[in-house]
Amino acid sequence: MDRHIAPVPLDKAYRLINHGPTVLVSARHGGMDNVMAAAWNCALDFDPPKLMVVLDRETTTRGLIERSGTFALQVPTVAQLALTHAVGTSHRATEADKLARSDVELFGIDGHDLPFVAGCSAWLACRLVPEPHNQDAHDLFIGMVTGAWADTRAFADGHWRFEHADPAWRSLHYIAGGHFYAIGEAMDAPAAE
Amino acid sequence: MDRHIAPVPLDKAYRLINHGPTVLVSARHGGMDNVMAAAWNCALDFDPPKLMVVLDRETTTRGLIERSGTFALQVPTVAQLALTHAVGTSHRATEADKLARSDVELFGIDGHDLPFVAGCSAWLACRLVPEPHNQDAHDLFIGMVTGAWADTRAFADGHWRFEHADPAWRSLHYIAGGHFYAIGEAMDAPAAE
Repeated sequence: MDRHIAPVPLDKAYRLINHGPTVLVSARHGGMDNVMAAAWNCALDFDPPKLMVVLDRETTTRGLIERSGTFALQVPTVAQLALTHAVGTSHRATEADKLARSDVELFGIDGHDLPFVAGCSAWLACRLVPEPHNQDAHDLFIGMVTGAWADTRAFADGHWRFEHADPAWRSLHYIAGGHFYAIGEAMDAPAAE
Repeated sequence: MDRHIAPVPLDKAYRLINHGPTVLVSARHGGMDNVMAAAWNCALDFDPPKLMVVLDRETTTRGLIERSGTFALQVPTVAQLALTHAVGTSHRATEADKLARSDVELFGIDGHDLPFVAGCSAWLACRLVPEPHNQDAHDLFIGMVTGAWADTRAFADGHWRFEHADPAWRSLHYIAGGHFYAIGEAMDAPAAE
């Protein structure tokens, strides 16, 4: 594993997605790996840490998650803009070489049988919390976070470092039609009275 | 209603929150209005447009929503940083003058019996889709979007205008402990092959 990647305490894992970035969702089952993009995700609980993500029923990744019961969420960077859009607009079902064509490089983390996307700023390993109604009626998948890591050049000591890091590390926030915004300026609210 | 506020077609309403901003949630019941902040929200469906938001059971706003069956989501701006943090950290139950102390000004929109927060960049009126399991087990509330509006200085013709607007219109993305990021630079992904 890259020497810059460090574990994030599970009680701080929500901070990795609290600012609403578009994420990459990856999964593995039966010898197949896949990766998709998902703008519709957010934290769901602090303790135990849970998150949720909307996965269209057409996606290959959803099928892998339903069968394996595990998935990873990761936070892509400005340097991965083309990769993020490519995995979000191509389909494994019709393009067997989707991952290679999207320039996705995968790596492993000990103790988690999941494909993690190299070059991201943060990673969350999740165990699916099965909820048939949410999955069937809303395409909504809930994950219990079982591990979290970040690249310390982007997130360290429990805090994002966007204001200090190379701008290539900024998170991506999707709108529509290939149009994203990068995360911007840090702001501290005045202390409450 | 302010002359800058224009309706947003419901099929584009998801774009108002797709980039993951922290939102203000407001509700009205029995002569009481309240407003809270919520980082944990995202779109859930395009058609009909639905969204979801996590509302702690301690909040007064949640009780108003459970009783009225309606709520509004709105997107606060950098100009509302102090307001957003104030309504997110004070409690109506113990501070009857919470809204006044937080400098919240409310306004109405014809056809929707809801308190909308003035000065935001976008507003979504929602009808609660009752789901007792999600509400009880996950504090998760699903809304059907019944109306959407934006300030045309920040969002017009179906697109955010952050790159052209005054920086005070940027959306806020909460991390923790009073620390936010504003949304940043616009980025267009290269067209897929």
